[in-house]
Amino acid sequence: MISERMEKQIQFLVTIDQLKDITRQSITINSKRNENDAEHSWHLAVMAMILSEYAEDQNVDLLKVIKMVLVHDLVEIYAGDTYCYDEKANEDKAEREQEAAERLFSLLPEDQGEEIMNLWREFEEMETYEAAFAACLDRFQPLLLNYNTEGHTWQRPGVNSEKVLKRVEIAKKKVPQLYLYIENLIQNSIARGILKP
Amino acid sequence: MISERMEKQIQFLVTIDQLKDITRQSITINSKRNENDAEHSWHLAVMAMILSEYAEDQNVDLLKVIKMVLVHDLVEIYAGDTYCYDEKANEDKAEREQEAAERLFSLLPEDQGEEIMNLWREFEEMETYEAAFAACLDRFQPLLLNYNTEGHTWQRPGVNSEKVLKRVEIAKKKVPQLYLYIENLIQNSIARGILKP
Repeated sequence: MISERMEKQIQFLVTIDQLKDITRQSITINSKRNENDAEHSWHLAVMAMILSEYAEDQNVDLLKVIKMVLVHDLVEIYAGDTYCYDEKANEDKAEREQEAAERLFSLLPEDQGEEIMNLWREFEEMETYEAAFAACLDRFQPLLLNYNTEGHTWQRPGVNSEKVLKRVEIAKKKVPQLYLYIENLIQNSIARGILKP
Repeated sequence: MISERMEKQIQFLVTIDQLKDITRQSITINSKRNENDAEHSWHLAVMAMILSEYAEDQNVDLLKVIKMVLVHDLVEIYAGDTYCYDEKANEDKAEREQEAAERLFSLLPEDQGEEIMNLWREFEEMETYEAAFAACLDRFQPLLLNYNTEGHTWQRPGVNSEKVLKRVEIAKKKVPQLYLYIENLIQNSIARGILKP
């Protein structure tokens, strides 16, 4: 007998396969096609493994950070990806994503639905150290892709180094060594002419 | 000053972006295109989170399982994906992958290169409980995709329920409740005519 609990869990795992179809603005470094949310989440999880030593809070809970980045974009299955510099789309982003979270996470058994909802909320609220660290990775990763693809999304109208720096500002206090790296990367990008000053 | 250590770590994180270009045999459920290794690794990591309660060893180290599935396919960046039912390609798989592991993980600082190498070896050797659990997920995930895409890779010559069952046999002892689910899924697939008996 397969339990109802397991049926629900597997139905959720089948549904989230759709994350592989949610495309982002950044492109992959070699094949130069739009990255999707599943790939992005995987990349963040490995980044968390490799860069955790730079966490300002040395008691950072790495398992929690990894869980958080693995599920942080799931709501986009129903709410879509919102480009970070699109001010209009960002107006109703919170509402759209809250609805999506309720719809998606309620596929799971109640206790697990609650766990994933809490991880997602914690990430969004950015108040715990784990959420701040995850946010720093989430903002650094597209920079790394842009830097290695001739500044792909930076070429759009209205994007400049000031806006890019502002978006990664949280790293200044939370992951200062990573912030130094980012400042350096941005200066190099301006010098290379792939990011407007 | 950016440390040499951090430069190495970030060079590694840039290099592994290529995992997004290593395609697998399975196709995604909605868009029906070949899945890639980065998406597959992400899917396994979320499966580990959701299904860990079925681990026969209740002391399973979930962080280790997740780390393992996140890096288990990295060697394919240099060694390519080897289709599990391709006997010829499987002959020199171990050798090709060992060389790839040495080349790829040596991009990292020594301590971290060793950590990732150990995780990969542990996964391959399948002796610890964490490695067995990770292997069960790695074998179950393509079944789930096949079941939801009219038995996509099962349609190839030479694939039948006996071979599929043999490949997931490890789950019988290691994750028995999942094995029951898989047996049921295989019976349904035969009944639906998407898998040869």
